[in-house]
Amino acid sequence: MNTVPVAIEPNRDEHLVAAVESAGGKVVGLDEARVLVWIGLPAEFPELPDAVEWVALKSAGIEDFFTAGIVDDRRIWTNASGFYAENVAEHALALLLAGLRQINTAVVRHWDKERIDTSVRSLHGSTVAIIGAGGIGASLGPRLKACGARVVAVNRSGREVPGADEVRRPSELDSVWASADHVVLAAPATAETRHMINAESLAALPSHAWIVNIARGPLVDEEALYKALVDGEIAGAALDVTDPEPPADDHPLWSLPNVIITPHVANPASGLTREFAPWLGENLRRFLAGDELLSVVTPERDY
Amino acid sequence: MNTVPVAIEPNRDEHLVAAVESAGGKVVGLDEARVLVWIGLPAEFPELPDAVEWVALKSAGIEDFFTAGIVDDRRIWTNASGFYAENVAEHALALLLAGLRQINTAVVRHWDKERIDTSVRSLHGSTVAIIGAGGIGASLGPRLKACGARVVAVNRSGREVPGADEVRRPSELDSVWASADHVVLAAPATAETRHMINAESLAALPSHAWIVNIARGPLVDEEALYKALVDGEIAGAALDVTDPEPPADDHPLWSLPNVIITPHVANPASGLTREFAPWLGENLRRFLAGDELLSVVTPERDY
Repeated sequence: MNTVPVAIEPNRDEHLVAAVESAGGKVVGLDEARVLVWIGLPAEFPELPDAVEWVALKSAGIEDFFTAGIVDDRRIWTNASGFYAENVAEHALALLLAGLRQINTAVVRHWDKERIDTSVRSLHGSTVAIIGAGGIGASLGPRLKACGARVVAVNRSGREVPGADEVRRPSELDSVWASADHVVLAAPATAETRHMINAESLAALPSHAWIVNIARGPLVDEEALYKALVDGEIAGAALDVTDPEPPADDHPLWSLPNVIITPHVANPASGLTREFAPWLGENLRRFLAGDELLSVVTPERDY
Repeated sequence: MNTVPVAIEPNRDEHLVAAVESAGGKVVGLDEARVLVWIGLPAEFPELPDAVEWVALKSAGIEDFFTAGIVDDRRIWTNASGFYAENVAEHALALLLAGLRQINTAVVRHWDKERIDTSVRSLHGSTVAIIGAGGIGASLGPRLKACGARVVAVNRSGREVPGADEVRRPSELDSVWASADHVVLAAPATAETRHMINAESLAALPSHAWIVNIARGPLVDEEALYKALVDGEIAGAALDVTDPEPPADDHPLWSLPNVIITPHVANPASGLTREFAPWLGENLRRFLAGDELLSVVTPERDY
């Protein structure tokens, strides 16, 4: 039988061992491996033997591996872009609904019906822009659609997005801000997306807008966001990511009643390898069959 | 042109006046009316002239009008059952997701990643039971389905429910509790549904279960709920309704970290007549045409 030696480092996680073995792989040390599954940090990344043809990383965003100069062009690299999309899309929807339905306010202000009754807004009937509509957008679109929202997706390819009523290009962002009720950020962190939520885009959004960020902290200029929230330029922000993480204990965003911050748990580490395992198995089957792998990293695109 | 005299009491709400007029009605005083649209409380309900053939109530649950002996069998009564279904279903989803994704915890425990990361659960892949699958259930089913949940609906009719993988009868509730991950209560308050969430049903649910109540407070035995939450028999409860409302300031449920209480805002009063207006217009058109009205009250069923 055709098999392939796979190293799982820095520790042999049980879910991944099972996935590798059931896909026809054999778990070995790095010095014997043709494949490395790396579930550690960039700082601990090992010297790669030439025999390693494919490195599988467990994260969707791997900018830290680029920054550290780890990703080379001598083998295939895969990230986990799209593998956790369902989970992250679900968290985005949870954050958006929590803000619109004022659950954050209700938790701290007991039965303050007068205040909450007048602040609750509905997702149904509203327009939601998903910025960066890859795997997460494709999972979020149908969820928002089922909730009665109109969905505008923004991506570079112009490809159709499930659930989206409309797909726009990044060059059209100005008109997207103006026509959206709410925004979900689902784009990778690149030079192009850095601070895409800034004083200008915040001013273009309606005053009832909620911004949800389940992507990467640097997409948002937090100083501009704080100002917009205090000035009532937008209604609220629900953030699973910040820049840096965690925010400082005395960060002004903590003090605002119209901010929800969850500690980067859209794809909780506690269940990560369990969610990653079936995708790793599928990619290993493809590797053995000589088929194209899922989620291959393209260094030119910088993510 | 055929027209009908309609009283809108105790105040002539602008959204309802517009709806009545555009549907071919004429707004008049109660002494001239064939139709009464009542948007006040039961306590203020007026003596009805014999000429009133139809009373339109603005609430979905009208048990207080029954208790006060207001609903008679000398004319047609309609409630607003199903008219606010989208809004209420949305709130139910918001409460369920907020609990599962630990947004309540994140709001009060800043970046407590260790605690939150291990407590976050996913809606996708779970089984949700909707108890009392009328209009709200029909709106909630497709939302849950789009979120990747399996949906079990429980109703008396056995009628299919949109989005539901399975429809069960109230007599089968024991097996429903045992197979559900989470429960949404969407049943009317009747003698039959009173305290349907009690020590027994709570014991039958799995320890990771969240219970959402967007129906009526008396469906839940709050003493049993408190005990189950403290003992870890279920994971949490998200309540938009309580018994009585509001709960006392020192009610023990306020003290629990795994309880979310919103102040009966699934269908916020601030936007109620705006949401009610198009349905009232539709019913008035039906009344004029001699067609069957939507949401006619059946006193024998006690709701």
